[in-house]
Amino acid sequence: MQQAIAILDSGVGGLTVAKEIMRQLPQEKIIYFGDTARTPYGPRPAEEVIHFTHQIVDYLLQYHPKMIVIACNTATAVAMEKIRARVPIPVVGVIHPGARAAIKTTRKQIVGVIGTEGTIKSRAYEFALRQISPTIQVVTKACPLFVPLVERGMFRADQTSQVVADSLADLQGAPMDCLILGCTHYPFLSDVIGSVMGPQVSLISSADETAREVSTILYHKGMLATSPVMPVHQFFCSGDPLMFKKIAQSWLNEQIRVTPVVWQVSHII
Amino acid sequence: MQQAIAILDSGVGGLTVAKEIMRQLPQEKIIYFGDTARTPYGPRPAEEVIHFTHQIVDYLLQYHPKMIVIACNTATAVAMEKIRARVPIPVVGVIHPGARAAIKTTRKQIVGVIGTEGTIKSRAYEFALRQISPTIQVVTKACPLFVPLVERGMFRADQTSQVVADSLADLQGAPMDCLILGCTHYPFLSDVIGSVMGPQVSLISSADETAREVSTILYHKGMLATSPVMPVHQFFCSGDPLMFKKIAQSWLNEQIRVTPVVWQVSHII
Repeated sequence: MQQAIAILDSGVGGLTVAKEIMRQLPQEKIIYFGDTARTPYGPRPAEEVIHFTHQIVDYLLQYHPKMIVIACNTATAVAMEKIRARVPIPVVGVIHPGARAAIKTTRKQIVGVIGTEGTIKSRAYEFALRQISPTIQVVTKACPLFVPLVERGMFRADQTSQVVADSLADLQGAPMDCLILGCTHYPFLSDVIGSVMGPQVSLISSADETAREVSTILYHKGMLATSPVMPVHQFFCSGDPLMFKKIAQSWLNEQIRVTPVVWQVSHII
Repeated sequence: MQQAIAILDSGVGGLTVAKEIMRQLPQEKIIYFGDTARTPYGPRPAEEVIHFTHQIVDYLLQYHPKMIVIACNTATAVAMEKIRARVPIPVVGVIHPGARAAIKTTRKQIVGVIGTEGTIKSRAYEFALRQISPTIQVVTKACPLFVPLVERGMFRADQTSQVVADSLADLQGAPMDCLILGCTHYPFLSDVIGSVMGPQVSLISSADETAREVSTILYHKGMLATSPVMPVHQFFCSGDPLMFKKIAQSWLNEQIRVTPVVWQVSHII
C-alpha cells in the first residue's frame, strides 16, 4: 500500500495545505485530521496544544504515514520540535516554509506576519526569520477573529470584509512589501486580505510554501510516490462531520468521505 | 571555522545562485568555483561534463564544505546523481528546485523550459516535472547562444536583445504561463527574456529556487550557520581571473578576491 502524508490541523484551516499538496503532488495519498471538536487552538495555553498535537499524531501513526505535516501554525509554534524528537519520520511544520518564502520575496527587508494570538505570542515567525536573516524587520499582528469566521464558512460575507479591514488597520501604511498569512485558515480569506493590504504587498501563504517544501523533502529523501494510480485520500474530524464535509468539499472542489473520530471522555478538556 | 556551502559552475552563471544564497542566507560562507577555462559545458558530451564535475568536486572537498551546490543545469542533468552517490554531504542541483517552483506556479499545467543543448537534450526538466506531476505539459527550447553572451558580459546590448528575440520566437504564443530559465546564466538576461515573453509568462529562476531549497535542506538537517560574524566568501576560477572578477563584482555588487586555479595538463581537454 502506498504510504500517505499525514496532515493534522485544529480544524479546517489545514485543508489549504492539503489542497496545495494535492495540486503540487498529485500522486501522493493524504490522510487528514481536523480537530474540529477543539478548534480553535490559537487562544489555548501552549501545554494544551502540545497535548492535543501528541494525541493526534498518535492517532495518525496507526496508518503508518511516511511524513507528518503539522498544518497549524499554533501547533507548529509550540509542538513541532517535540513531535520531531519523538517520531522516526520527517515532520514538517508551516512556519519555516513561510519564513523562507518571505525572505526570498522581500526586497525591503521588512516582513509582516499575521496569525492567531498563540502564534504571534510565541514569536515563532520572528525567531524563524531572524535565525536565517538576522537584520530583517518583522511587524506582527494577532487576528483572533479570522479563524472563527473561516470555521463557520464565512469566506466572503460583508461582515467578514469589515472584520478583516478593522483587524489589519494597524498594518496598513507600514512599509512592508510582503505579509505572511501565518495561519492556515487565512488563505480562505486571501481575496479580502489582499484587497485591504493593496497590490504592493505580496501575500505569502504558508500553505503553498509548505506544500512546496513537502515536495522538496520527499524528493531529497527518495520518498516521492511513484504509483500512477490516483490516490484516494482519507479525512477524519473530531467535531461535526457534516459541517467539516461541507467546507472541505467546497474548498477542495471534490467529493470526500469523512470519518468522525470521538475523543474519549478523558481527552475532552 | 564555519563550514562553507560549495558552489560549482561551468563559469560565471552559477553566480546567480551564489548571489541568491548570499541574499537569502546572509550568514552562510560560500566557496565558489567557476570553470571558466572550459566553459561552456552545454555543447559538451555528457561523459566530459561528468568528468569535469568530479574534478571540481574533488577540488572543493579539500575545503570541507557542508554542502555542494551544482549551480549548472548541464552538470546537474548528467552528473548530480553520480556526485550524490559519492560524497557524504548533501548535494543540491538546480533542476528539481526549478521544476518544483514551476509546478507551484503554473495554473494552466503547461510549462516552458529553455536551457543549453545539453540540458534540453537530457530531458532532465521533463523527467523532473513529470516525476512529480505526470500530466503536466512541457515545451522546451535550446538557446545555445545565451551562455556565450553572458560569459562576455553582454547583458543588455542591442545584439543581445536580437539574439534573445530570435531564440525565443518559437515559444511566443505557446499557451504556457511560466517559463523555467533552465540555465544559471539566464537570469543575467531576465529583463530581456521577460520583455520578449510578455507579462503573462512568469519567469522561474532556477537560481532563486535553488537558494530557497538550500535554505530548506540546511534547516531540516540542523546545519544552518549560527555565527553572527559576516562570512568572507572565496572564489576560484580556472580561466582569466580578471574577466571573472569583473563580471562577478558587477553582478554581486561587492569587491571579491579571486584565486586562479590552473588545471594540470592531463586535465585540459
